[in-house]
Amino acid sequence: MAPDPESTRQRIFEAAIEEFAAHGNAGARVDRIAEKARANKESIYRYFGTKDELLRRVLDRFLDERGEQLLPQSQDVDAYAAALFRYFATHPEFLRLSLWEGLELGAQPDAHAMDHRRRHYQEKLRSIAEQQDAGTIDPRLDPRHLLVTVLGMANYWHVLPQLVRIIFGTEPDAATLDRHEEFVAECVRRIVTPRP
Amino acid sequence: MAPDPESTRQRIFEAAIEEFAAHGNAGARVDRIAEKARANKESIYRYFGTKDELLRRVLDRFLDERGEQLLPQSQDVDAYAAALFRYFATHPEFLRLSLWEGLELGAQPDAHAMDHRRRHYQEKLRSIAEQQDAGTIDPRLDPRHLLVTVLGMANYWHVLPQLVRIIFGTEPDAATLDRHEEFVAECVRRIVTPRP
Repeated sequence: MAPDPESTRQRIFEAAIEEFAAHGNAGARVDRIAEKARANKESIYRYFGTKDELLRRVLDRFLDERGEQLLPQSQDVDAYAAALFRYFATHPEFLRLSLWEGLELGAQPDAHAMDHRRRHYQEKLRSIAEQQDAGTIDPRLDPRHLLVTVLGMANYWHVLPQLVRIIFGTEPDAATLDRHEEFVAECVRRIVTPRP
Repeated sequence: MAPDPESTRQRIFEAAIEEFAAHGNAGARVDRIAEKARANKESIYRYFGTKDELLRRVLDRFLDERGEQLLPQSQDVDAYAAALFRYFATHPEFLRLSLWEGLELGAQPDAHAMDHRRRHYQEKLRSIAEQQDAGTIDPRLDPRHLLVTVLGMANYWHVLPQLVRIIFGTEPDAATLDRHEEFVAECVRRIVTPRP
């Protein structure tokens, strides 16, 4: 049977997500990706270019294929924060990929990657503005500052697991995760609730 | 003149902060540290042990020597968040070291490093509890969940510079930083203000 290039590409993509999420760009090893994907290194370079290009394309494609999961159905910003917190607790890949990117590459992703993600976040900014028009979010809050702040409230727990462990004095259990999810949603409500 | 071991150690320490903050554990190169510190690699291994041990000790010592700057004088949690945001805008080293640690080592810093930082954060937790007793922070907020949330609000901007750039559509200027500092402080006040 002839090898199926599409299925090989998909296996490389899955293995690359795992490898980059675990080790970042400097730490990622193309031969580990090849091994996990049951592909050879040459096919990785052929399909995806250099390791740097592979990382860019993994981030882009991840948002294409799974970005929807990062945009919970609920438009309410408190439920959005809670859903994001819950999502990253079990699916840290995208957050980890973004953290590596921020640390290793600074604020300079290429133009295409920017475009890609800009569309993703524009949707959230639009949703916040609509809720401000509808009177459910305080219109005095700048949607851009609010979005960065809410993302920080939802995600920081997963960004620094060692900090959580230090502050709580132990590995957080499921009940602590539940309480934090509810805590974040409550804090978001306190921020956005329109005031007289 | 005989070489001064204490001054060599200090130069190695400074160079190691810079190198680990820039490249993380996997990406850090002991020979670059040696070059910047005008020391030889052997003296680094002799004073600090392996690269892993050096990273631990850099983090610990950083908190010892500069931890005070991470604990702004103000006890008010809104001013604390604002000061933290402002501090990391110009001094990202400790945040970057912590991010690398979280990504590369997960939630398992060694017992000594935990102890060290536990004392640091216990002080903040105690201060929050005191303000709850004094009636200036809503006593229904668990100080531990509040501290993680406030740290996320203050720091996330610096954690993902590429996210800020995408959401704002440009590199944030000084006025945008000022507005975000004030925005974070206002959000913290909305969260902590005791309610009837």
